[in-house]
Amino acid sequence: MATMSREIRLKSRPVGLPEAANFELATVELPEPGDGEVLVRNSWMSVDPYMRGRMYDRPSYVPPFQIGQALQGGAVGTVVKSNDARFKPGDLVESMNGWREAYVAAGAALNKLPAGGVPPQAYLGVLGMPGMTAYTSFHRIGEPKAGDVVFVSGAAGAVGSAVCQIAKLRGCTVIASAGGDDKLAWLKSVGVDHGVNYKKGNLLENVRAAAPKGIDIYFDNVGGEHLEVALEVARPFARFIECGMISIYNNTEPTPGPRNMAYIVGKRIKMQGFIVSDFMDMREQFYAEMGGWVRDGKIKWEETVENGVENAPRAFLKLFSGGNTGKMLVKLS
Amino acid sequence: MATMSREIRLKSRPVGLPEAANFELATVELPEPGDGEVLVRNSWMSVDPYMRGRMYDRPSYVPPFQIGQALQGGAVGTVVKSNDARFKPGDLVESMNGWREAYVAAGAALNKLPAGGVPPQAYLGVLGMPGMTAYTSFHRIGEPKAGDVVFVSGAAGAVGSAVCQIAKLRGCTVIASAGGDDKLAWLKSVGVDHGVNYKKGNLLENVRAAAPKGIDIYFDNVGGEHLEVALEVARPFARFIECGMISIYNNTEPTPGPRNMAYIVGKRIKMQGFIVSDFMDMREQFYAEMGGWVRDGKIKWEETVENGVENAPRAFLKLFSGGNTGKMLVKLS
Repeated sequence: MATMSREIRLKSRPVGLPEAANFELATVELPEPGDGEVLVRNSWMSVDPYMRGRMYDRPSYVPPFQIGQALQGGAVGTVVKSNDARFKPGDLVESMNGWREAYVAAGAALNKLPAGGVPPQAYLGVLGMPGMTAYTSFHRIGEPKAGDVVFVSGAAGAVGSAVCQIAKLRGCTVIASAGGDDKLAWLKSVGVDHGVNYKKGNLLENVRAAAPKGIDIYFDNVGGEHLEVALEVARPFARFIECGMISIYNNTEPTPGPRNMAYIVGKRIKMQGFIVSDFMDMREQFYAEMGGWVRDGKIKWEETVENGVENAPRAFLKLFSGGNTGKMLVKLS
Repeated sequence: MATMSREIRLKSRPVGLPEAANFELATVELPEPGDGEVLVRNSWMSVDPYMRGRMYDRPSYVPPFQIGQALQGGAVGTVVKSNDARFKPGDLVESMNGWREAYVAAGAALNKLPAGGVPPQAYLGVLGMPGMTAYTSFHRIGEPKAGDVVFVSGAAGAVGSAVCQIAKLRGCTVIASAGGDDKLAWLKSVGVDHGVNYKKGNLLENVRAAAPKGIDIYFDNVGGEHLEVALEVARPFARFIECGMISIYNNTEPTPGPRNMAYIVGKRIKMQGFIVSDFMDMREQFYAEMGGWVRDGKIKWEETVENGVENAPRAFLKLFSGGNTGKMLVKLS
């Protein structure tokens, strides 16, 4: 009997802030898996800020999403049928085939996950791309030392909250910026030293008060004003981990950069962008150390969950309105 | 008999572009050199853009110049009297005691230079701080590979023209930006592949035409529009060597940064500031390799010379009006 799958397609390219009308729901009939192929039913999918970038029709490190085609993104699912000897029904697998309920794909494109020990959606969060993004870049670009002062923007998100906790485990002082006192209360409950609500008062003054001696590492999820503030309070030889600039992604006009760029020279700052796949050589180290921390309860996370593939666009839009706490997920089955 | 020395003092802090009225000439009587001290008569002194930063009263990597006191900067001179066993009359020495005709200083603060082989002012240029700035940062931050495309702003200056020639010696393609066709003609005569006159036409279009496949290394002397253009044409994993931002140093209002900062993330750019003293561990390598290139005629330079300490302010002001070609020097005796 044919397997049906509902999926979310890009209907039109967002101009500025994405909206529901940019997406459409469709139902497709999946083929039988061919030789080397696997049929998977997704249980969880991820929505992430970087997906906004793929909605522009422009060259980037990953090709743009195409109008009329299903979107893509991280997903965890269970193998239903397999014509690849490496997989059997019941296996937990990770793929980039999110935004759909089920799919047929070459086994070679799937990543088999260890069974048990942690809930499956952890592989979309602290043990998935966000966790690996945090872990690899914090070490590789941030070069943390015990005693360093670390400033994290977007700190309540999946990547940011992982960075905060990894930094604490490395003996750093952590200042977290987020857009709500409830988010900051949770961050303090997992060990963050100082919280700054960027929606209240003057950001520069508040960060200065939290870091009177300046910062050694800035983990940037947002760009814009936060980046300018970080340049202002940076100590000599500070490292800026440029993970994202969500504050400017939706701007339709070019956004002027920080007014204090000259500090990069005067303070000898290193500012470096990356994507997680640049650090694939750290994958085993990540699974070993971060997996241990997760099993030992040393790394915690929060989730915001929407149910059903039809609500995936709503989950995605929440990323830009601050409507999520921690990892934004969609439960698919 | 007492030794007299004329010197240039900071009379007032410049607001915006420095002007002649910010400086004053004074004459001092030097003391006899005490134990461990040396009397030196300067033959050449250097003026450099970074000195503008020291004229602000603000914390930085070096303390600000003080009103009513002699300015400081690189100088080469000859020992006249010595109470330090390491120096004898006639020795060529390098110091930070520029902007004056003669001085008494502890021998420990002086750097003895090798005699002969190159003209003494080379130790203020290609074999001095500008050359070492170029050589160390180009290798340490730029991580050049043969075949890389290198874009250099302020390319006709002492640092920029050294970077261009070092890059050619490393097998790179070099695109040089300068503010005059005569400067670009000279740069082409020493091997630069493409010249861009930033005062003519659209900078982005001109750089794109010179580097249709993009750039791998940007050596930034100027900041501002050049930095934005470099971000625009950067290839993935490009390295930005942030040496200076002379285009914004004199602005009295904060200058907005590049409007395309998000490329740092998307293109995984590394942007890093430095000062030459960060790379002192490369000093021996620099003298050995760069000294060899200079003696072999593989590194050339141009000089613009003013005569007499009283004309040092004029020489300094020329740095901001584009009045110099190559290294700006003042001949003192």
